[in-house]
Amino acid sequence: MHSDPAAFKPSNLEPGFRARLEDRFGAQLQTGEAIRAQHGASETHFETMLPDAVVFARSVEDVIDAVNLCREAKVPVTPYGAGTSIEGNATPIHGGVSLDLSEMNRILAVNSEDFDCVVEPGVRREQLNEHLRDQGLFFPIDPGANATIGGMTSTRASGTNAVRYGTMREAVLGLKVVTPDGRVIRTSRRARKSAAGYDLTRLFVGSEGTLGIVVEVTLRLHPIPEQISAAVCGFDSLKGAVDTVVQSIQLGIPLARVEILDAMQMRACNKWSKLDYPELTTLFFEFHGSPLQVGEQVEMVKMLSAENGSGEFAWSNLPEERSKLWKARHEAYYAAVNLRSGAIGWATDVCVPISRLAECIEETHADLAKSAIPATILGHVGDGNFHVVFSIDPNAPEEMVEVEAINARLVERALAMDGTCTGEHGIGIGKQDWLVEELGDAVDLMRAIKRALDPENLFNPGKIFQL
Amino acid sequence: MHSDPAAFKPSNLEPGFRARLEDRFGAQLQTGEAIRAQHGASETHFETMLPDAVVFARSVEDVIDAVNLCREAKVPVTPYGAGTSIEGNATPIHGGVSLDLSEMNRILAVNSEDFDCVVEPGVRREQLNEHLRDQGLFFPIDPGANATIGGMTSTRASGTNAVRYGTMREAVLGLKVVTPDGRVIRTSRRARKSAAGYDLTRLFVGSEGTLGIVVEVTLRLHPIPEQISAAVCGFDSLKGAVDTVVQSIQLGIPLARVEILDAMQMRACNKWSKLDYPELTTLFFEFHGSPLQVGEQVEMVKMLSAENGSGEFAWSNLPEERSKLWKARHEAYYAAVNLRSGAIGWATDVCVPISRLAECIEETHADLAKSAIPATILGHVGDGNFHVVFSIDPNAPEEMVEVEAINARLVERALAMDGTCTGEHGIGIGKQDWLVEELGDAVDLMRAIKRALDPENLFNPGKIFQL
Repeated sequence: MHSDPAAFKPSNLEPGFRARLEDRFGAQLQTGEAIRAQHGASETHFETMLPDAVVFARSVEDVIDAVNLCREAKVPVTPYGAGTSIEGNATPIHGGVSLDLSEMNRILAVNSEDFDCVVEPGVRREQLNEHLRDQGLFFPIDPGANATIGGMTSTRASGTNAVRYGTMREAVLGLKVVTPDGRVIRTSRRARKSAAGYDLTRLFVGSEGTLGIVVEVTLRLHPIPEQISAAVCGFDSLKGAVDTVVQSIQLGIPLARVEILDAMQMRACNKWSKLDYPELTTLFFEFHGSPLQVGEQVEMVKMLSAENGSGEFAWSNLPEERSKLWKARHEAYYAAVNLRSGAIGWATDVCVPISRLAECIEETHADLAKSAIPATILGHVGDGNFHVVFSIDPNAPEEMVEVEAINARLVERALAMDGTCTGEHGIGIGKQDWLVEELGDAVDLMRAIKRALDPENLFNPGKIFQL
Repeated sequence: MHSDPAAFKPSNLEPGFRARLEDRFGAQLQTGEAIRAQHGASETHFETMLPDAVVFARSVEDVIDAVNLCREAKVPVTPYGAGTSIEGNATPIHGGVSLDLSEMNRILAVNSEDFDCVVEPGVRREQLNEHLRDQGLFFPIDPGANATIGGMTSTRASGTNAVRYGTMREAVLGLKVVTPDGRVIRTSRRARKSAAGYDLTRLFVGSEGTLGIVVEVTLRLHPIPEQISAAVCGFDSLKGAVDTVVQSIQLGIPLARVEILDAMQMRACNKWSKLDYPELTTLFFEFHGSPLQVGEQVEMVKMLSAENGSGEFAWSNLPEERSKLWKARHEAYYAAVNLRSGAIGWATDVCVPISRLAECIEETHADLAKSAIPATILGHVGDGNFHVVFSIDPNAPEEMVEVEAINARLVERALAMDGTCTGEHGIGIGKQDWLVEELGDAVDLMRAIKRALDPENLFNPGKIFQL
């Protein structure tokens, strides 16, 4: 057992329950403060809230037994992957057991002829792509962080490739899930499509561990493109950049990635990554296909960019050159947070119909201009999804209050444009009021489903909505 | 009121309830036998089961009022669109009200810059595509029949374009739904992606009207490709045809359509459509893209086909030529049913991982060879989804028994290959036992959701599963 000499919040496990957990899990049970604090912390600005214990699951049987023991003792269970979620999604706000699935990290099968694979929930996306490379396949969903597949499933993650390859909604073919009553169910067979009853797969994708613990994921894969090209291009105006993307899609150009970074973000990137890009609204592109197709795509997008007021259109097919071109984008989050040294980051997330994107970003810029807190905008422009990253002084509590107000106005703005309060980070703790504003009575249906599947409210309680 | 002189099953509405329906709906309420029989019939082999009344809804308010009146009287409500479903999905097996949504057929908005549109549930897919054509957009889901968008949503329809454009699962961006308690909810905003809570959109897609009545659908659209080419090619072997498709996908060739027709189906097509294709396993292709891209795709697929034992590879860019090439495919179902004159059709549907497709079709051929009943195989080979179409003598009841047994063996075969009992037709009445075999305890979760959202079991009761 991990020792627990100086816990500022002692583990509050009922002794009989603790003994049963120890009997079953031995060293897989940890109650020391450091480990509990790690599992209670958030990547962003949320308060740390400690679980009473952490159980490291190594098998489906471990998950079943942990769930059964917790249910018998009426103790909450919150699944935990890499801890990279943004809205406090895995923070155990009602204590109980943090069920760490990171050691369930085996790739169980790769069915290359079927373009799918079966993995345990603790597999990281980079690990999966390294494993797949030799077979000419890749898993496209890239939220930035090296998250676990289980965590990405539970938050319906997406990221830079979504414009072409979709989100976890499209990427997950099927799930094995442990339900609150301790049963293991499989939501789907391995066929590529099915009309067999309610779409339980999609119900669990994005349910943030509130309905079941994901213990196995079948993922859709894609062939590695024969050629990949990258391009970077600055624009006179935000509208010019957005119009370039809309027109590209209208022409049927299958953009694999298209990211927008605003002038402030480019300034942050130049400083952080030691680059000298023009400090303009900038698009980062990636093109996938045969050499012929990619060449044609690059030419067409270059032409559209010029028509919409772009500067130099820098592009390359070579892996090292591509990485150099995209370096700014890859390091953008850290660059933004480090606009001030010692700052903490807050990355918010909205998504609007693409016809409203330029307007939404412009109004947000006007709002940000009224504040002295450094903030940048970057986003997945093909989806209408963007983030504001704030660089907050941890010793100035009034800054947190100010950012909360800016964030509220941003979400209201997105909702007024028929957008969503979260394109890819999930609801977690942070967006619950907005969910109700966004979907109204539909949230009652979610509550009814939660009550039906988890009648004792023990699976990640207090997340997404209040019951 | 429609008169009802000779009903073989009289409408059995409680008089007070009938009076309330008449007061509210006037001539929109119909209880005559002919109209009830039409709404109780199935496209295929299922017994006709009459509703007690048909209500023709013209607005969301009509749907709400019909639902509220039915709930107060504890009368079942079954939504009805074009009546083209295959598994008895819209047959009102417990009587009550058939709620006909076909007159709610307005296209409410086309947001061309956002590549989406908003339609009422009674809009037909051909009507929608005619409306969209001038704006350079199209709605790709094509199940064959000119179904309603509401019906296609409810059965999670797909069809020939799914290999490239997905199914109704991917095509539906959001829904407006009337719930069993008479509320109108919206499952999603119009943003292209969202991580806002449970994916209610995907829960309603494929729920066959058992959880809510779809009254508005927001659909994802695509730009009409600059060039479309079609190709047709016969193969020495089934395996050669399937391998051509797998290798095409491995090379990243974005096939827009790829259909397989077996030798018997080609014989039926030659006879029915007066063609002279070789009576071999045949692939029908469609390619979408720029002229350069399409040209490259055609060349690559032609080469792969030749390597896998194809005969002549006939292709064309010209609309009339394309239609001629695809004529056999477009008329395939009628050609198959009419292998015998006066026959009735039964089209079954399974989907397996594509690596098992050739084997699954070969074993099915061996099974069909033991029967004297004419039967063909055709399918959406890129998805691993195929149909057997039987041409059944309506005066030989033993043929129905024999087809039932062949169908049972087919579904068992697909399930043993980790496939599904239905790729696109839904469960309806016909596949309920197989659903339980396919997903086991997961069906209990579906039941729990049904009970939570429709506690009195009034929405299309008796479909998908038994409660």
